[in-house]
Amino acid sequence: MGTRPSSRALIDALRHRPVTVATLCSHSSLQIFHGARMERLSTLGIAVGKPPRYYEAFPLARPDSYLTVPKATEVGKYAKQLNALGSVIVPHGSFVEYMGADRFQALQVPVFGNRAVLGWESDRRKERAWLDSAGVSMPRRYETIDDIDGPAIVKYYGAKGGKGFVLAKNRSDLKDFKPSGPYVIQEYVLGTRYYLHFFYSPLSRDGYRVGPGSLELLGMDRRDEANIDELYKLGSQEELTRAGMRPTFVVTGNVPVVARESLLPKLFDVGARIIERSIELFGGMTGPFCVEGIVTEELEFKVFEISARIVAGTNLFPNGSSYSDLVAPQLSMGRRIAQEILRAQSEDRLDAVIS
Amino acid sequence: MGTRPSSRALIDALRHRPVTVATLCSHSSLQIFHGARMERLSTLGIAVGKPPRYYEAFPLARPDSYLTVPKATEVGKYAKQLNALGSVIVPHGSFVEYMGADRFQALQVPVFGNRAVLGWESDRRKERAWLDSAGVSMPRRYETIDDIDGPAIVKYYGAKGGKGFVLAKNRSDLKDFKPSGPYVIQEYVLGTRYYLHFFYSPLSRDGYRVGPGSLELLGMDRRDEANIDELYKLGSQEELTRAGMRPTFVVTGNVPVVARESLLPKLFDVGARIIERSIELFGGMTGPFCVEGIVTEELEFKVFEISARIVAGTNLFPNGSSYSDLVAPQLSMGRRIAQEILRAQSEDRLDAVIS
Amino acid sequence: MGTRPSSRALIDALRHRPVTVATLCSHSSLQIFHGARMERLSTLGIAVGKPPRYYEAFPLARPDSYLTVPKATEVGKYAKQLNALGSVIVPHGSFVEYMGADRFQALQVPVFGNRAVLGWESDRRKERAWLDSAGVSMPRRYETIDDIDGPAIVKYYGAKGGKGFVLAKNRSDLKDFKPSGPYVIQEYVLGTRYYLHFFYSPLSRDGYRVGPGSLELLGMDRRDEANIDELYKLGSQEELTRAGMRPTFVVTGNVPVVARESLLPKLFDVGARIIERSIELFGGMTGPFCVEGIVTEELEFKVFEISARIVAGTNLFPNGSSYSDLVAPQLSMGRRIAQEILRAQSEDRLDAVIS
Repeated sequence: MGTRPSSRALIDALRHRPVTVATLCSHSSLQIFHGARMERLSTLGIAVGKPPRYYEAFPLARPDSYLTVPKATEVGKYAKQLNALGSVIVPHGSFVEYMGADRFQALQVPVFGNRAVLGWESDRRKERAWLDSAGVSMPRRYETIDDIDGPAIVKYYGAKGGKGFVLAKNRSDLKDFKPSGPYVIQEYVLGTRYYLHFFYSPLSRDGYRVGPGSLELLGMDRRDEANIDELYKLGSQEELTRAGMRPTFVVTGNVPVVARESLLPKLFDVGARIIERSIELFGGMTGPFCVEGIVTEELEFKVFEISARIVAGTNLFPNGSSYSDLVAPQLSMGRRIAQEILRAQSEDRLDAVIS
Repeated sequence: MGTRPSSRALIDALRHRPVTVATLCSHSSLQIFHGARMERLSTLGIAVGKPPRYYEAFPLARPDSYLTVPKATEVGKYAKQLNALGSVIVPHGSFVEYMGADRFQALQVPVFGNRAVLGWESDRRKERAWLDSAGVSMPRRYETIDDIDGPAIVKYYGAKGGKGFVLAKNRSDLKDFKPSGPYVIQEYVLGTRYYLHFFYSPLSRDGYRVGPGSLELLGMDRRDEANIDELYKLGSQEELTRAGMRPTFVVTGNVPVVARESLLPKLFDVGARIIERSIELFGGMTGPFCVEGIVTEELEFKVFEISARIVAGTNLFPNGSSYSDLVAPQLSMGRRIAQEILRAQSEDRLDAVIS
Repeated sequence: MGTRPSSRALIDALRHRPVTVATLCSHSSLQIFHGARMERLSTLGIAVGKPPRYYEAFPLARPDSYLTVPKATEVGKYAKQLNALGSVIVPHGSFVEYMGADRFQALQVPVFGNRAVLGWESDRRKERAWLDSAGVSMPRRYETIDDIDGPAIVKYYGAKGGKGFVLAKNRSDLKDFKPSGPYVIQEYVLGTRYYLHFFYSPLSRDGYRVGPGSLELLGMDRRDEANIDELYKLGSQEELTRAGMRPTFVVTGNVPVVARESLLPKLFDVGARIIERSIELFGGMTGPFCVEGIVTEELEFKVFEISARIVAGTNLFPNGSSYSDLVAPQLSMGRRIAQEILRAQSEDRLDAVIS
């Protein structure tokens, strides 16, 4: 894995001592701690201001101790304390977002997974290049409105948290479109959305072999989005737009799903291609990742995004999912991460899963 | 708890004898019995006419015995028999509705929870006063149609079971509105719905402390409603209305969900405020309750209703939910109720959880 | 059961030897094998071309061995090998579809369930006659467009996989309808869809008694369909049709649901009627079947289709569902099938469950 020289010593320090799973108290932290506890690992909650009260309600997920920081951006200042506890940071979407990707990259504490993925995932153009060159099917990009020949979605650059999108059934829906900033136009693919919770282990040589390791599918969900999901109850998209209400796509939660079994070969193929290409590009994405796509009426799977770490949809399954139940009993993504750390330690291959 | 003097002797009679969990065979009764059996409590099904046949299909949920009554309204006449068995009645929505709130209030049998909540929950104005004074954010009320300045929903008083609602994108949608009876107008909040399955224990001093006890979150669901949920497939709300089809909101079932973890502080805060205010107003709501609200695109949580007892959405989780799995293994709401009864008995504090 | 004379010897051959659960690697095969393994039965995956790679990712579901066939239509040629292993074929939707119903009927290998059901299920008119004569409530049929007096759906004969349907809010929506082939017109029932996972055991005399055996409800789901399920996000049905986009109903996956408990008497009654009538018509449907219907705002249940074997929605529940948890712990449909085979063998009644 593309380990920076500075990390080597930190990883080496974990070889012969008990490890502590540490993460920021948000996003999927309850599940990460719950899973680590199932594997009897120590846990440390990084809390902004003070430990969150809601943790008190979940005795099986509460971390063993807390590190309180004034701001998420300042976690790096506590590297010494974190390392003294033998911490392995488990990143999640909010951790990276609140801390800042640059600061996260520079963190002088061992991190589960390959940090190099951040540079490829946070830049939409690089992410697309990665997926495209992996041979993954994606919604088309339109250069200009004149190129549109079907349903489309316009996304402004830097649109945050699911707002500022414009949907169009066809080009003529956009004839009066006045952009308020730089944007991209994408094909709007009709179908149903599936969020695939993969885990890539560079250590395991059983199972579905990809590169030096193997690929696991541990769950699946669909995101709940406000206001788009229940908007139709009030009226048609067209009339609502006329009345001044815009669709937004802010994730508020998750619902469990399974995909038809005959799709699994395609879904695993997509996961494998993404991993294989990641190995070529930056030494490989390891641990949890999520492939987010749409199954069309032709039963194609079109990938619209990936997340290169644990996603919140895995929170549905602290005790196992319809898929992980076929892998091992009571296997959450959080627990799987803990297992991988323990295995890497016992096989003296921490550098393969930590960066 | 606001125990009526008449109940004192009935509760005392339970101090040193085996308790029987009794409820009306409907709504969430399978789960209530299943949970009580997990805790090795005796169970009694109160059946109208004769024991329901479908119980035979669920051997782990069938009650140990049945009490057959001619009508739900006449349960009170069987108080002696119920008390002879050491019954604790677990109320659910259908129990109270079929029996009648007044008759339920007057029932000379110990009831799990505080019956005083009924007076506050069954009257929409009192419920709103309770929630408003608790500082809980709710959809606005409009006094007249002229006050409307956004999407709205008109609800007729006494509209039963999700019918007789009128939706409007804005004031002009209601310009031809001819009321067919007394009504209220409410802001229609756009977003996704979450139904939070809370449990308030006045006995527990661990966990998320509220008042003298603690608050637990044991699950979450979304209600399935006919015909609104699948109406859009046939056409737009506007065209369907023109064709004479009205949206209705009749609950037909439930789907499991989780909310994003970053919402949990807000959701617990709402639950805590509702409990704290209930203690001031009427001695406290105890045991299961459900907060029903909408998460907006701004990630606000707007409460549109509460249910002051076990809700049918908990039927999704007889063996534990994504939340209760972080509290204790295999913990359903029905089982949690049984645990609270047993704890109250062993600590000689039955009056804190029974009325 | 309507056992063909030719099958008798094959079934007899299984009386005193270990049984192997065999099925085609698709649809619900992971779950079927997983369940069989829980009951310690041997498992055989029938694979077209070569064993599917995705099986490697599910160690608890992988079959013990594979039989590789060049095409699904040629499974019959491997009867000798299948019988040498003591195979009991567990049919699923893809198995019958890929192999061909006629070839499946003629297969000289023991099959779980009564093959005679195929003739009644694959012919829409016979299926309707079965359900109608069972007294099951169904959407109405309209003879001509002029008969339509409400929402309707036009289905072309032989429309494959959820395409080629036309929805109409009323007769006038169809005034310009130009059929492109033979079709049927059905009432379009508004409400929410539930897919009931029943199991009929001719051996069990406990539980919900129907005919000589008993009826179990082991789960419930809702199907995910592309593109209809998320179509509304782009615009109203009417505007989308104008823009040339047609609704399609291709099943892509499944979501877990529960129905309100007060519906259970109706749902069991429907299941029981279908079984009772099947006994009269063709010796009885045994094992798993799925009743697919709509709950209306009047809380009626309208059946629009049945599947006479295991459905893919059961894949949601390899470790038990909200319903099966009330029957027995960790009971999937696949496991239930394995249990029935073992019981039939131990009671020397294989002919009651195998054909």
